[in-house]
Amino acid sequence: MSEDSSSALLTDHYELTMLQGALHSGAAGRRSVFEMFARRLPEGRRYGVVAGTGRFLDLLERFRFGTAELDFLSDHGVVDETTLEWLSQYRFGGNVWGYGEGETYFPGSPILVVEGSFAEAVLLETLALSVYNHDSAIASAASRMVVAAGDRPLIEMGSRRTHEESAVASARAAYIAGFSTSSNLEAGRTYGVPTGGTAAHSFTLLHDSERHAFRTQVESMGAGTTLLVDTFDVERAVRTAVETAGPDLGAIRLDSGDLAATAGRVRKELDDLGAVNTRILVTGDLDEHSVQALAVAPVNGYGVGTSLVTGSGAPTVSLVYKLVARARSLDPQAVLEPVAKRSVGKPSRGGRKWGARRLDDKGTAVSEEVFPHLPPQETGLRPMLRRLVADGEVVGRETTAAARERHRAALAELPEEALRMSRGDAALPTVFR
Amino acid sequence: MSEDSSSALLTDHYELTMLQGALHSGAAGRRSVFEMFARRLPEGRRYGVVAGTGRFLDLLERFRFGTAELDFLSDHGVVDETTLEWLSQYRFGGNVWGYGEGETYFPGSPILVVEGSFAEAVLLETLALSVYNHDSAIASAASRMVVAAGDRPLIEMGSRRTHEESAVASARAAYIAGFSTSSNLEAGRTYGVPTGGTAAHSFTLLHDSERHAFRTQVESMGAGTTLLVDTFDVERAVRTAVETAGPDLGAIRLDSGDLAATAGRVRKELDDLGAVNTRILVTGDLDEHSVQALAVAPVNGYGVGTSLVTGSGAPTVSLVYKLVARARSLDPQAVLEPVAKRSVGKPSRGGRKWGARRLDDKGTAVSEEVFPHLPPQETGLRPMLRRLVADGEVVGRETTAAARERHRAALAELPEEALRMSRGDAALPTVFR
Repeated sequence: MSEDSSSALLTDHYELTMLQGALHSGAAGRRSVFEMFARRLPEGRRYGVVAGTGRFLDLLERFRFGTAELDFLSDHGVVDETTLEWLSQYRFGGNVWGYGEGETYFPGSPILVVEGSFAEAVLLETLALSVYNHDSAIASAASRMVVAAGDRPLIEMGSRRTHEESAVASARAAYIAGFSTSSNLEAGRTYGVPTGGTAAHSFTLLHDSERHAFRTQVESMGAGTTLLVDTFDVERAVRTAVETAGPDLGAIRLDSGDLAATAGRVRKELDDLGAVNTRILVTGDLDEHSVQALAVAPVNGYGVGTSLVTGSGAPTVSLVYKLVARARSLDPQAVLEPVAKRSVGKPSRGGRKWGARRLDDKGTAVSEEVFPHLPPQETGLRPMLRRLVADGEVVGRETTAAARERHRAALAELPEEALRMSRGDAALPTVFR
Repeated sequence: MSEDSSSALLTDHYELTMLQGALHSGAAGRRSVFEMFARRLPEGRRYGVVAGTGRFLDLLERFRFGTAELDFLSDHGVVDETTLEWLSQYRFGGNVWGYGEGETYFPGSPILVVEGSFAEAVLLETLALSVYNHDSAIASAASRMVVAAGDRPLIEMGSRRTHEESAVASARAAYIAGFSTSSNLEAGRTYGVPTGGTAAHSFTLLHDSERHAFRTQVESMGAGTTLLVDTFDVERAVRTAVETAGPDLGAIRLDSGDLAATAGRVRKELDDLGAVNTRILVTGDLDEHSVQALAVAPVNGYGVGTSLVTGSGAPTVSLVYKLVARARSLDPQAVLEPVAKRSVGKPSRGGRKWGARRLDDKGTAVSEEVFPHLPPQETGLRPMLRRLVADGEVVGRETTAAARERHRAALAELPEEALRMSRGDAALPTVFR
């Protein structure tokens, strides 16, 4: 999406009809608090990762109803004239707090809190959920892959297996979670994610021979390039690669077969050919489990595609956005009364909440504590919410690099068992105080 | 994405470095054919649905390297000067054929064929795959839900559970597959998908009481509206709903609990209250299996969210884009020689292919036949490829409504067993002639 286009129709029809109704009853102006949180983690996951914050803030600034948006709503009779008039003046003027991007999260504690009139806050529901549900799903999967890969770099290359714009957001989320690079150029331009990539099988097939293709690539990109060696016969291709590039060949890539066994054979072959510093990159339907299984193989880096962009089995993290408190009048001093639905199996917990992370004296997280007021200032209790928007102005913008650094620190804080790849329960209990 | 922004960086880094290499060797101008196809259907699926064609054609027209794109590539050293110069003039001038949007597909038969110079065709790989892999995954899941729902309408409401732009494409794909409406307003504006929706639990909680909320909604939107009745107590809410709207109340919505049992009780209650024409809509984590299970319940429509936008277990259909033939020289008359990789477990089948569907004398599909030449013109053999782009000009554009109609016809043609919800193999064999 271009930087100046409106994001206002990236929302559900019912947000606008609710607005119309609330304008009719007069309740639209009641001060309200909505919270976004996860009822549970995806099955078997031990922690979640917050991502999307930066993108949400960008989209929030473009959430305006211009002539084109109002004409559509009017022509299709979505809302009445009073509502159209209200929307034409809309600009979010409330407050938003959220977990810092890159933080880990656990069920029940709000990772985004939106305070404003019902009208201005309800309109953001769909957009906020879309952004956070997608980006957090990708970051949560990516983080586990990063843990599984240990010190070895991970390359994100899943663009082709997801919507073309999700691909950009996925590359960003993966980078925040610790991936080193991405194949996606738009993520490079928009978010500064380092990009990389060299050649596919089609490049080899285009040329007169594998040797012709390798020679071309080395001449054009230098000996430091990565040559793809599994188009025909891996052993022969590795020999051709070193003959062509010399022992300073940067890397070879394996994309098929038994990766562990092949990497072992290729390592020996490379070493025998004197290419002792040539790295071995592996790709091809990897996920956190296969990455972990390759830990003992002589592999220097992993390219991950499909499993990353599909959240490795959890393509959404099912965050919800719920009204938890509202004034009963338009008086700005009116008390914010807790509200909660009692739907079977989906009850909500009324009242505004503030999450904080409890750490033991070694700095290891032991629980997520949720208070009905600002968390007490005490040692070992880290407040999780930071101000993102103040009276409509974005104040919490930060770089993708800062979110990446925050995730690194957040991971380091988790207890060891949180980082296991096996299925498990949430690594920290959420305690409601 | 706005209508005039460039789509050229929605691609993988390596497409551009391959271009650089091919320009260096001179092979960039070799006439080439790439095919997009599925190696297999998602596990247990009996057929797939082609979607994304219309979106791909739109994005193709915007695949241009302007100053902003070239500056990024230059500043980050992605490609050399020669390549930048070439890209600045880039405009796809080749030919594209594809299955009509909305068609069903089976493994092995190319659903998109791109013919042009290697350079111009390779650049489209990532973008084409992103669009088709996403949209076809959604349409393939949606189609099964449509089959399961029978004559009852389906409402797409998954925007909040996927990336905000995927949400728009998902609404479009679901509509093509037979959904009646979507909650997504941008899909209404961009693709003419009918939109709908009324209120969430927050609307009830905002007001002083459920009765207050219902009265507001009915006054504002008329008695034909849909009232959400599971915020507190369903039975009491249904009574309040009919008291407020009268017996002409349009519909009530259930979003929690045992939907079949609750719908049965609510139907009786509505009938007893004289609201015999009030419809019952059900929502809440439905998928094709739960929709089918509700066939015997007195339900009038289904809202589907998460399972739709995540492809109901198959968020990508894993289409690939492979070079299958290329000239060995720049002579425009040079023969297109078949090429194929021999990677372990991922072999490809060289040579250009044309798919056709074989029908029996009752018009039921019996197989997908793939020819190494144009399919013979004979009764009972329906050619699947239509021209989409001719010498760089889009010629195959059509309305979303046309794709929707094509899918209806394509479903009607499948054998009965293809429409079962249980896991199975591809309903039609692919026969290579």
